[in-house]
Amino acid sequence: MEIKNILVANRLYKEIKEIVEKNQLDQNFRYMPEEEATYEDFIWADAYVGFRPTPNFHFGELKWIHSLAAGVDRFVSLKWKNDVVLTRTIDMFGKKIGEYCLSYMLKDIQLHDEFSELQLNQTWKVLEPKSLQSQHVVIFGTGEIGSYLAKILSFFNMKVIGVSLSGSPKENFERVVKFDEAPEHLKSADWIISTLPFTHATNKLLDKNIFNYLHNAGFINVGRGATVDDDSLLYALENGHIRKAILDVFTVEPLPGSSEFWKMPNVIITPHISALTSPEEGVNCFLQTLSMITTNQPLTNVVNIEKGY
Amino acid sequence: MEIKNILVANRLYKEIKEIVEKNQLDQNFRYMPEEEATYEDFIWADAYVGFRPTPNFHFGELKWIHSLAAGVDRFVSLKWKNDVVLTRTIDMFGKKIGEYCLSYMLKDIQLHDEFSELQLNQTWKVLEPKSLQSQHVVIFGTGEIGSYLAKILSFFNMKVIGVSLSGSPKENFERVVKFDEAPEHLKSADWIISTLPFTHATNKLLDKNIFNYLHNAGFINVGRGATVDDDSLLYALENGHIRKAILDVFTVEPLPGSSEFWKMPNVIITPHISALTSPEEGVNCFLQTLSMITTNQPLTNVVNIEKGY
Repeated sequence: MEIKNILVANRLYKEIKEIVEKNQLDQNFRYMPEEEATYEDFIWADAYVGFRPTPNFHFGELKWIHSLAAGVDRFVSLKWKNDVVLTRTIDMFGKKIGEYCLSYMLKDIQLHDEFSELQLNQTWKVLEPKSLQSQHVVIFGTGEIGSYLAKILSFFNMKVIGVSLSGSPKENFERVVKFDEAPEHLKSADWIISTLPFTHATNKLLDKNIFNYLHNAGFINVGRGATVDDDSLLYALENGHIRKAILDVFTVEPLPGSSEFWKMPNVIITPHISALTSPEEGVNCFLQTLSMITTNQPLTNVVNIEKGY
Repeated sequence: MEIKNILVANRLYKEIKEIVEKNQLDQNFRYMPEEEATYEDFIWADAYVGFRPTPNFHFGELKWIHSLAAGVDRFVSLKWKNDVVLTRTIDMFGKKIGEYCLSYMLKDIQLHDEFSELQLNQTWKVLEPKSLQSQHVVIFGTGEIGSYLAKILSFFNMKVIGVSLSGSPKENFERVVKFDEAPEHLKSADWIISTLPFTHATNKLLDKNIFNYLHNAGFINVGRGATVDDDSLLYALENGHIRKAILDVFTVEPLPGSSEFWKMPNVIITPHISALTSPEEGVNCFLQTLSMITTNQPLTNVVNIEKGY
């Protein structure tokens, strides 16, 4: 594929420019914030690099789109132009999300809040932390991120069950089951973690039919907000099916001030930071993909538009 | 070694009794709280099982002492009777302490406090967590606990330097150095973690001569409180050598209400819980050691009284 003109329109455009200019590249570049990209820019460009379609996005003459984010739902929800290749950043997300999840599981079982409260009262009271290996975890989504997360949790001898559409076995999981086989594992789960992408098949997939099986479990969402039915989640939080929720993604982001989640004592909110792409990482993956494309090598990070991931 | 009479005098005596009685053992047992053990009990006993010497401790006719704790400083500071064997619980402490340390490192670099504060104000503000692999760690003490901790941290690709009296290389450490070679590694350390036992050689070893080399580092003490010079630690916390201290052990325990540490905003206090022995674990190790002793097999958990660990 011949790529001559590349449009870089996103919030990191300055940082990307700086990094790209250190490399000797043959292509022409235009750098700008998302909202400044015009129809003319898309007619000029062979390739677009961004976190999502710009407000004025147009397929124009594009042959290749590179998503700086791992989640590509905002790209694949476009009426796709068939000959355009969509690639995405895949570096390190599993590792980052793994450390995010582990941090909140450890905060909980190491009783950080309880000891903090005791310290405020200058009280020396022995409470016993739980071990990671005592915890049973069900991970929804067994793709790259779910698998890497499973690798980290397995290192600590946690029991890790995966749930996927196919139910195909994957490394690092004790077992992978299909959605309809999940309930028997949910009953004894200490944690359920969703790494699901947003697709037609996962839209509000996590609802009361899932949550009702839980007994006092922790829930972590590092996938996509819209894979969860918010009313079901609120109900589960109020009725003890879910003991505590750690939410990094939401149906609407930024989370509106009116959301009940903000003030619930058993909800932790983080602003979609569990797998931030640093400028260096995003650009490195983009440059690597560019190099593969221009030398006609096989790509490992192409998105299947139908499947949506 | 022939063991007939065993004195179990410690806070877990009821739980231990329950577990021991499930096993068919030939020995005679006496179970009681520490403070109730008398001179006569020690004359009667061949073996004593406890966390430390009782208030009325006496070597009496003892041949074997089993410490339910990993730290044996309160035993080895006794004027030792040479033919008495001291063993200690070794199971799982490295794993527990590893998870404790990791939990507080992740709390810090995943910005738990910052996101909690933002949530209180219903503010959606993107902040970037740091990765574990960006962190440089110096671990004081490269024994079982330090080594297991290094294994966990290395799994996350952290740079882990060990400091020990001998400086002998150990698995899981990028490098192990002697105390006088530590300063060059302290300068760039994000964390220093002490797993040191309390011995004559480690008494107040961590003082201003160590702390002054640090630049804004985190300090975690999971070894023994008396290995730290408290005035030096206070000074380092007030002067930015140490950014944050997580203290599970103290020179005097329980930490007195008068201690300045309780109220320092950059100090986290936990009540010596990073490696609690559960009744099951302590008893299992004791029973295993008893079985090895009565069948004359080599012991792997004997304490060297001279060295103190």
